[in-house]
Order: sequence, then C-alpha cells, then structure tokens
Amino acid sequence: MKHLFVILLSLSLFACGNSNKEDSGKTDDVQDQNTERYVLVIHGGAGTITKEKMTPEREKAYREGLEAALSAGYEQWKSGKTGLDMVEAAIIELENDSLFNAGKGAVLTHEGKNELDASIMWGPDRNAGAVAGVTTIKNPIKAARLVMEKSEHVMLVGKGAEQFAESGKLDIVDPSYFMTDRRSKQLKRILKRDSTKIVLDHDEKHGTVGAVALDKNGNLAAGTSTGGMVNKQFGRIGDSPIIGAGNYAGKQVAVSCTGWGEFYIRNVAAYDVEAQMEYNNASVTEASAEVIRKIGDMGGTGGMIAIDNKGNIAMPFNTRGMYRGAVTEDGKILIEMYK
Amino acid sequence: MKHLFVILLSLSLFACGNSNKEDSGKTDDVQDQNTERYVLVIHGGAGTITKEKMTPEREKAYREGLEAALSAGYEQWKSGKTGLDMVEAAIIELENDSLFNAGKGAVLTHEGKNELDASIMWGPDRNAGAVAGVTTIKNPIKAARLVMEKSEHVMLVGKGAEQFAESGKLDIVDPSYFMTDRRSKQLKRILKRDSTKIVLDHDEKHGTVGAVALDKNGNLAAGTSTGGMVNKQFGRIGDSPIIGAGNYAGKQVAVSCTGWGEFYIRNVAAYDVEAQMEYNNASVTEASAEVIRKIGDMGGTGGMIAIDNKGNIAMPFNTRGMYRGAVTEDGKILIEMYK
Repeated sequence: MKHLFVILLSLSLFACGNSNKEDSGKTDDVQDQNTERYVLVIHGGAGTITKEKMTPEREKAYREGLEAALSAGYEQWKSGKTGLDMVEAAIIELENDSLFNAGKGAVLTHEGKNELDASIMWGPDRNAGAVAGVTTIKNPIKAARLVMEKSEHVMLVGKGAEQFAESGKLDIVDPSYFMTDRRSKQLKRILKRDSTKIVLDHDEKHGTVGAVALDKNGNLAAGTSTGGMVNKQFGRIGDSPIIGAGNYAGKQVAVSCTGWGEFYIRNVAAYDVEAQMEYNNASVTEASAEVIRKIGDMGGTGGMIAIDNKGNIAMPFNTRGMYRGAVTEDGKILIEMYK
Repeated sequence: MKHLFVILLSLSLFACGNSNKEDSGKTDDVQDQNTERYVLVIHGGAGTITKEKMTPEREKAYREGLEAALSAGYEQWKSGKTGLDMVEAAIIELENDSLFNAGKGAVLTHEGKNELDASIMWGPDRNAGAVAGVTTIKNPIKAARLVMEKSEHVMLVGKGAEQFAESGKLDIVDPSYFMTDRRSKQLKRILKRDSTKIVLDHDEKHGTVGAVALDKNGNLAAGTSTGGMVNKQFGRIGDSPIIGAGNYAGKQVAVSCTGWGEFYIRNVAAYDVEAQMEYNNASVTEASAEVIRKIGDMGGTGGMIAIDNKGNIAMPFNTRGMYRGAVTEDGKILIEMYK
C-alpha cells in the first residue's frame, strides 16, 4: 500500500511539474560536462561557425577576444564588484574588439550605417536599461547602464538616447569609428546577391555579444550588445535591447541571447527561461534547451547563454556553432566555438 | 483508504500547481461577476479615474468612445473575421477618438511632440509587429500589423517605420493632426510644476488603449496603441510596442497593458500571464492579478485586460480606475470606469 502512495504521488507530481523534461540534455551544456560553480558566461554570436571554415589565425583571434572579455569580467568578480560591473567589463572588451558584431566592427544596415543596440538588467530588483538605434556612443552597454541608473526610463532610442549619453559624459565617437573594411565588403557582397533569404543564412547575422554573471553576493546580472542584422532595414530593432526577449536577469537566472532576433522577440525567449524555472521547476539546462527548441520549431536559429543562482550554466544553440566562454570561481577559463 | 488517495492526489496537485491562488479575486474581474463567453475586451487607459472627478458629459463621452470601439470589433466577429481584424477595428476607433492617449489626442513629449507606439500579436503562430516613435502615421496599429504581415521584422522605429508605412500605402498625416488643445495645456501645466514625480501621479500618463479578442475559430489576438507618457524624454519607448511587456497573444491568453510602462517592461508583464497559465495552471484571473500585484510591489501603477481561449476575461488594475469594456458573443456590452 505504501508503494501505491509513492507511485501516485510521483505520478501526480510528474503530471503537473515536468512537461518538458524530455528535452533536457539535447543541446550543448557545460553543466553536463562540469559541475564546478561558474561566475561568468559570455557569447560572441552564433552561426555557421565550423572547424572547416576557420583558419588557425582566425580561431586564435576569436579565442583571445573571448579570453580578454572573460578576464576583464573575472577581475571585477575577484575584487568583489557587482554582477553589473562584471557584465559591463566583459561586454566593453567585446564591443571594442572589431571581430564581434557589437560596437566597433558591427554589421551595416541596408543603408550602410551602424545602428547599435544594447541592454542590461540587474536581477535583485529587476531594474533594467536599454538603448537602440544609436550611432555615436562608443560603448552602447555603458549607455544602457546609464539609462537604468540615471533615467526614469528603461529604453531610449536614437537621438534621445545619444543626447542622454552625452549628458552623462559617455565617450561619443564619429559614426565612422564603428566601420570596418570587412563589414563594408560584407554588405556589398550581400547587396549584390539581393536576396534576403541568402542573407539570413549568413553567419555574421547572428554576431551579437552578451554576458551573464553571478557575483559574490549571489546576485545575477545580464547584458547584451549588438549591431543587429546585416542589411537590416533602417529603424529595425531586434531582440537584444528588448528586456525579456534578448536579455533578462531575475532571481532564478540571467540570460543573454544571440540569433535571429525576430524569433526571440516572438518567444519572449530570455524571460521564458526564468518562467519555466520559477513556475515549472525546470533546471537552467532544461529551460534554455526548451526555448531553443521552440525557436527552432518556428524556423528560427541562434543560441543563448544562461547562469542560474547556484552557478550552473547552459549554452544551448541550434546553429553550427557559437562563440562562447565561461569562467569558474577559481578562475578556470573555458572557451568553445563548435558543436 | 480511497479517501486518503484523493486527499494525497489533490494535496500534491495543489502543491505544485497553484502557488498564487490566494491572489485570485483580489482585483476587479468580470469573470467573477459573469460566466458568459466574451469575444472582445478593450481598455482606454488606467489612472486616477473617480466618480468625483468625472462630469456627466465627460463620462458620457468616454462611454460612447468605448462603445464605438466595442461595436466596431464586434462587427468583425459577427462577420467571421479574425481576432486581428477585431482588435485592429476596435483600436482604430480609439486612435481616432481624441479623448484617448493614442493616435489623435495623444500626450506630448517633453519637447511638445507626439511620438506614437503600437504593437499587435497573433496567438496561433505568435507572429507580431510593432512600431515606435512614429509621428506621421494616422493609425499606428495599422502600421504594426503591416510590419507583422509584410516585413521580415517585428519592430521598426522612427523614420524607418514611417517610410515602411508610406510604402504600404497607409494614411500619412502632418504631425499637427495628433495635437489637441487639451494636451498642449496639459504639458504646459506639467512643465510649470517641473517635477516628474508629480507627472507620474497624473492620470493621463496611463492613457494607453488596447484590445484583446477571441475569434470564432478560437484564435487569440492582442493589440495596444499609445502616445506614451506625458512629458516623456525624446526617444523614450514604453511597454506598449514591446512584445511580452505591454502586449502579448499566445495559445492560452491575449493581454494588453496600460500603466507605468517601465514597470511592465521589467516584469515582462503581458507574457507573464501566459507563462503562469501555461506552466503553473493559473487561471486568467489569478495570473493577471499576480502580475498587477508584482507591479504594485515594485511601486508601479496601472492595469491590464486579458481574455483566455475559453472566453473568460480579467481586467485587474491597482489605480483608482480604468476605462474598460467587453462584449459577449451574443452582443451584450459591458462598460466600466471605476473600482
């Protein structure tokens, strides 16, 4: 009779608690390979990143860029700074590195301009800030944080955001600062093809950067920065500056996304990880894998990074590869690019 | 022994299914007063709307405006049109009515301009469209739908959105079309006070409009349109054009929000209703009440309207009042303004 009780109990718990367990472990997840406590995870974009397409020089450059960002964030952790400081420090490195599609080296719009988006969120009070469509702010992630900490608003776009950043004494640059030969050639190449479908297969399209952190006080933070989608329409806003879509930090988890932004917005992708953990007792592995599955079912591609309040991390993606890295509390750095 | 099984089953189901039951019924909810099947719900903004502050003429005007919007949407339902057609028809009425803070009669930015935002979402495939910071599109809700149906993108802002609307042959007007004496006086009054805190207590601040619909095929749709926050900073984007924050439609529920936008963004308010229903078996009453509670705990004010896939509706708010109305499948119209 005791057995019947146990069976019945587990049956009914299973029935209402775990509708998506079968998805767990279907995607890359460091948590499965490693049970160490992580403090910082970053990504440098997802796309058709394969060993075959990579030269040793290019791989070395990406590895060094990711390592520099992880080290910058980890320095903040060591000196007891907040998750916001960790995330901001890591993303500034990636924005200043022209290899990544954020800040310097961002992709160009259809009109050949750089329009940059960024957002940041602080888990303990779920305060957030974002800027979108900015063209003169050297480090958009700093502007996102300024909006969060010094304005009544969460999201500022275009000139309004740039005026606010100037008033806050952030570094303002000429729009040409962000331009690189590589991106100009990329846009020319794509405009010649004149087919959006082809563009959407293009790996640089997914080159957003992001960081999620768990600080020494156990607080979570998330940040994301991007140049958006190559050849995007003037005025298009993707998921990166949208709280809940491309970026989210709460009590359970901090998430930063990279991918075909429209699908992330429609799935409220970043917050859906927190929602599954909060309401459905899903693990960070299960919840993030389920969101990437939903995006894939819709025809979307990309990935995300997530860290929970225990230091467990997940880095699922449905593309050929994703530039990603993480660091443990004792400073062990992990960097991966391929499936 | 049978009884023990039942008790154990219900206990364990309760334990994992309904963590926020105690919040149910704490806020206004037509579902509690009425078990009829609804097909359309609208709101015209929440704020310090009280019987004392209202003149009979003003109340009559608001009532007629809400009734016209409900009738326009219901006509679409009767002729078997989709939820998108119902939502769009209702919101066009409210945008064209200068009483409401959307389209004509929208509030003014700090610079004395009208910057309009709108979004729309279709539950069956969670496709969505949004425009923000537009100044020349007569009916922003039409532009949001055009972005959803005719662009690769979900969200377009500013000039890019206006160019796209023009290319789609939507009505373009001079920015002066949206201006009204009432709004100009309102801004002058507030600028004299020169204190944002006072502004944020002001009822017009919450005057967004929205509609949620359940069509004859059982499909859900949601739409929201606003002039944003009076005296807002140039370039500020609130929750209304942000999918998941101010507007969401999925398989379970369609939601449109009105209130202090920044708190709705930080709480991913609209999608959080769907998430609680999907993952936590909450009812539309419980889920929407819980979101308004979270927003209130943070210091935010406002309300939301929601309709689930069975025609149950909820219209919770934590302000003194909210302009709201609903219509049942047999055409019975309900309109309320106060607590």
